This record gives sequence, C-alpha cells and structure tokens, in this order.
Amino acid sequence: MMNHKQNKPSLKKMIAPTLALLALPVISFALEPLPKNPPIPTDNPMSAAKIELGKELYFDPRLSKTGTVSCNSCHNVMLGGDDNRSASMGHEGKLGGRSAPTVWNSAFHSVQFWDGRAASLEEQAKGPIANAIEMGMDSHELAVKRLMSIPGYQKQFKAVYGGDKITIDQVAKAIAAYERTLLTPNSPFDRAMRGDKKAMNTSAQRGMQLVQTIGCTTCHMGPLFAGPALPQGQGFYQKFPLIAGSQYEAQYDLTKDLGRFNVTQKSEDKNLWRVPTWRNVALTAPYFHNGKVKTLDEAVRVMAKTQLNKTLTDTEVSDIVEFLNSLTGEFPKQSMPRLPETKNHSVIE
Amino acid sequence: MMNHKQNKPSLKKMIAPTLALLALPVISFALEPLPKNPPIPTDNPMSAAKIELGKELYFDPRLSKTGTVSCNSCHNVMLGGDDNRSASMGHEGKLGGRSAPTVWNSAFHSVQFWDGRAASLEEQAKGPIANAIEMGMDSHELAVKRLMSIPGYQKQFKAVYGGDKITIDQVAKAIAAYERTLLTPNSPFDRAMRGDKKAMNTSAQRGMQLVQTIGCTTCHMGPLFAGPALPQGQGFYQKFPLIAGSQYEAQYDLTKDLGRFNVTQKSEDKNLWRVPTWRNVALTAPYFHNGKVKTLDEAVRVMAKTQLNKTLTDTEVSDIVEFLNSLTGEFPKQSMPRLPETKNHSVIE
Repeated sequence: MMNHKQNKPSLKKMIAPTLALLALPVISFALEPLPKNPPIPTDNPMSAAKIELGKELYFDPRLSKTGTVSCNSCHNVMLGGDDNRSASMGHEGKLGGRSAPTVWNSAFHSVQFWDGRAASLEEQAKGPIANAIEMGMDSHELAVKRLMSIPGYQKQFKAVYGGDKITIDQVAKAIAAYERTLLTPNSPFDRAMRGDKKAMNTSAQRGMQLVQTIGCTTCHMGPLFAGPALPQGQGFYQKFPLIAGSQYEAQYDLTKDLGRFNVTQKSEDKNLWRVPTWRNVALTAPYFHNGKVKTLDEAVRVMAKTQLNKTLTDTEVSDIVEFLNSLTGEFPKQSMPRLPETKNHSVIE
Repeated sequence: MMNHKQNKPSLKKMIAPTLALLALPVISFALEPLPKNPPIPTDNPMSAAKIELGKELYFDPRLSKTGTVSCNSCHNVMLGGDDNRSASMGHEGKLGGRSAPTVWNSAFHSVQFWDGRAASLEEQAKGPIANAIEMGMDSHELAVKRLMSIPGYQKQFKAVYGGDKITIDQVAKAIAAYERTLLTPNSPFDRAMRGDKKAMNTSAQRGMQLVQTIGCTTCHMGPLFAGPALPQGQGFYQKFPLIAGSQYEAQYDLTKDLGRFNVTQKSEDKNLWRVPTWRNVALTAPYFHNGKVKTLDEAVRVMAKTQLNKTLTDTEVSDIVEFLNSLTGEFPKQSMPRLPETKNHSVIE
C-alpha cells in the first residue's frame, strides 16, 4: 500500500481529471473510481441501529446450526472479505463447491453469487443460513426462532422494524445494510483518477493501459471493474472459458461447474459467470469460481488465454498484476460488535 | 445488566466495605471483587504493539491448517468468551472432548485448561494451534512458517520482539498479552463490594449468603470464585463428583473423563478438575467439563448434590442463580483488528 499521507495536497484537489494527468499517454476508457455510496433500495433504508444490528448478525455464529459459522467465517472483513480458500468450509467441516466472493464493495454488484442467482444483497444473505453445507440451519423459520429466543435481538429488531416478530427478511435487510457500509475507497487507482500522479507506479500505469488495449476492460469495466452499471437484479455475465481448448481448461478444471446454467437451465448459459470485481483482487487468492488458480499472475495468464486468446509476456503479466494491486482500497476501521447473550442457557443444540 | 450510572456517587467512594453495608446480615467470607490488573509475567511485559499483535493472532483463522478456525472461534470475545457448545468444534468439523472455558478473566487463573495442564496463558495459547482436532497445524514450526510468509506479521513481530525470526513463544506471548486485557470489571457483585447497596437485588443477596453457608465458597472463593490466590503454575483442583453415586453421575456422564489424571497419571488425580470461575458463568452454558448440563439452575442443583450432598429447594436454586448472574461483568469495547494480508496468493493450502 502506498503512503497516501505524502499525497495529501494533491488528494485535496479532489478533481476528476482524465488520465491525461498521468505521466503516460492513455487511450480513452471506461474505468471509474469507486463511487462514494452504493445504491440503497427504497425498501431498505439505512440507519445506524440497523447497520449495528446487521453487523452483530454478520458476526454471530449462532446463525449456523452448530454455532460455529458466521457470515464472517467465509467473508472475513478483517481480511479481503473472503476466506482465501479454494472452496469454502461450512459447518461441521462441510466443503462448498465454489470459492467465496469478497463482501467488500459487493453493494455495487447488481446481482450476487458467482452465478448471479440472488438479485440483491438481501436475497443473498438468506441463502447460506439455510444451506446444508454452509450454515446448515434446517430452515429460515428455525433461524428466526433462535434469534427470537435471544432477548437482545428481540429488542433490537423491535427498535429497528417495530413489531414483536422477527422475520427472515428483516434479518437479511439488516445484514445487507451492514454490507453496504463495507466499501474500500481511495485505492491508488482511485487516487490517480482524482489527479494524484504519484498514486500509481509506472508498472501499474502500463498495466492499466494494457488491460484496455488487449481487451480485458471489455468486461472488467465500471466502478467495480465488473461490468457496466445495470439495474439491480440484472447481471453482467460472460462465458469462461470463452475460447475452448486452452491448456488451462483441463489443468484447472474450468468447465466442470456450469455456472449460470445451474440457475436457468438454459443451454446458452452454460459456463457463464458473473464478471467478478477486480477491486481488492490482490487479497482474494486463490482465484476463479473453483479457486483452482493459486496466484494472481497465473490468473492473469489464464484469463488472457481463455478470454482473449493472448499469450502474455512476463512483463505484461507483471504490469497487469501491478495495476490490479493498485485496486486495493482502504479498509475502514470498525468497532467489534458485542453479540446479545442468552442467560443461563445456550441456544446451540 | 443494572444501570451503574445511577450508582455513580456510591461507586466513587471506592471503599472496600464488609458486606455489613448490604441490607441483609452477612457472615464473614472470602469473596473479593475483581482486581484491576492481572499478574503480568516478568518475561512477557505488556505493550500496546504486543497487545494489538496478539489480538490479530487471536482472530486470525490462518493459524489453523484449513484457515477456518481462530482462537476466537471457540473463545468468542464478542460473547461470553466461549462457544456455548457442549464440546468445541475444531477445523474440518472435528469434535473436541470438552466444553471450551471462557477466555474472559482467564488471566487471573494460576493454571489453564480444565485439567490445569498449562502453567500459563502463554503455554495454553500454544496447545490448540498444533492440536489435530482443534486448529490442526501439523507442527508449531509450520504455524510459524506460515506467519513468516505474511509480511505484515514479520514487520510487527520484529517491532515487538526484534530479530528476523518469529518463534512460537513470541506468538504465544502476544496472544497471552492480548488475553490479559480481556477483563470484565464492575459486575453488580463488584459494585456491591464497593458499597453500592442497590447493585445486587435481594434474591442475589440471599444467594450470596447461601453459597457461603452451604459451602460452595470452600472452593469457589477468591477474585474469580475459582480458588485462593496461588503461585502461577500451581492449580486449585477439586474432585467432581466428590460424593459418588448421585442420580446426576450417570445422567450427565460425569466420571468418564478422568480430568487431571490424564495429565499426571496419578490415581489420586482421577476426576480432579481445576475449579472453574463463576465470573460470567451466566453466559457460558452449557456447563461442566463435558457441557452435558444445559442450564445454570440444573448446574447449581448438580453441584449442591455431588459436592455437598445437599438437595436445594427451587427458591434456593433461583437465589443462587441470581447471585451467579450478579457476577456478569462489563465487557470492554474493542476495535476490530485488521489482519495483515498476503498479496496475490493465499497461505492456505
């Protein structure tokens, strides 16, 4: 991470220059700094009390059947927002089939999950709770019943939503509200976009040009480098691998999981995936939906070959990695939540 | 929890009164408020940098082989310092044999673990990391090697201890330093001891008398209600069940685990256990070494019968539970640690 204190004077300008301000000549492009705020659904307005409740729920392992897995277990906000595992491990050591996507900046995605099967953060939050290999609650009703048996939650839900009954939608809304605060602004790239010429080193600047000239930004565009702004619920998908038959396909078992097809059962959706974000990608190894690729430089090589049919030189790879590294943002300081307790008994079976 | 703002004037006196200040007549006893500071070993002085490093390690799941279990997984400081499970669940869903003791105030214990097999917090911290059913690292060497591969840790260890090599003892010292900050002062009992007559309700006051008159405090004495002050490394043990043949012995499988005997192999240590703390016991259900007793009121009944050969009335049980509830302290606000990251690769296999 660069020392942005040094760059304070230029940061203060806070202008939105074209990249002409950077040292190298740059083509026009569709890259954008991270917006200050994500879209907020009208039926789930933010409030401090709701965000705090959502944070407690996010960290509460009692949302899993065995009391051992919380949202944070696989989407660790003390790190890059995932678990750095190829496949996530749910309760009782059960192995999932995909690598956990990062929760950081997920509020800017128009659909959630690798296959876009959730139209919102609210919908996403409900999934793992009742998934047998994730948090393993037998039903949402049981999850809600358990929360109802914790007096502190009862009180907080009432304060946030009114009424005496907790619903799974309220649970999901609170978690989503908290997740909408998980933003990482001020990456070197963002600072460069605002005019700080020293924010990105020359290798990263070369990498930034490369991803545009060779075609990566055809898909990896927009504020998340995950596609154009689309209405909530409408996903931006791409086939992966696009070019069949590369050496990597078998090596990394890229086609076995059919991705979006599993959701729609349409043959044209076979091996389609939501275009993942580049933001903080330096921190979310291993890579791709199955987490089979261990390093970012190899991930860059694989993508160039399977999506663009290009074989990159080592320098090109390292420049692109350097650019991707410039997309690591600043992680906000957080307070540790205190979870509401149960007195004289446990709610874990 | 009581509102101690109301009681500020009497708190300010900060005298150490006899219980004559309370409404009820009370016999002399050996109960003490929680001291302000725990003992600090001369070879592990506290520092802000060491405590912060220790907090990061405490929350870091990468200290486990699969990257899924941190110290906090079983000793959750966002709750009562344990996992509210009868037996803890380690990495890959492996089940432990005992219920996790609370980390809160553990700095006051003269030995650690249910069977006292660790003479210090430092010694304790090393155990689970290389335990096959807990964090599952194949060796301490591998744990240290993994930490060495994380640049942020390398830097922090160097700043705290000097030198370029991380050792497992340094890891343990940092974790122990953090744990020595995990104290819960100002329980209603502590406030009562300092003269606040309203801090404990009358049922709790009756319970406090009862635990002394019937004999509980023969063992549950001292600042933790876990025995007299002993030199570090010297444990205070008691046989459990002391009186054989009660209905509870078979019902809750109390004698199968031989406790201290597993450490010493001495027959006189069979079914001996470190006397556990009463502090925050309201929050650490289920109860006893095997976590077979689900509620605190049943735990009180079991103890009265198996240790004192007494059958308590329902009122006696509820008064004692009320007293035990008055030992729930104030949990300090904490900041969430940010864990040092690895760039472009994962250290999890």
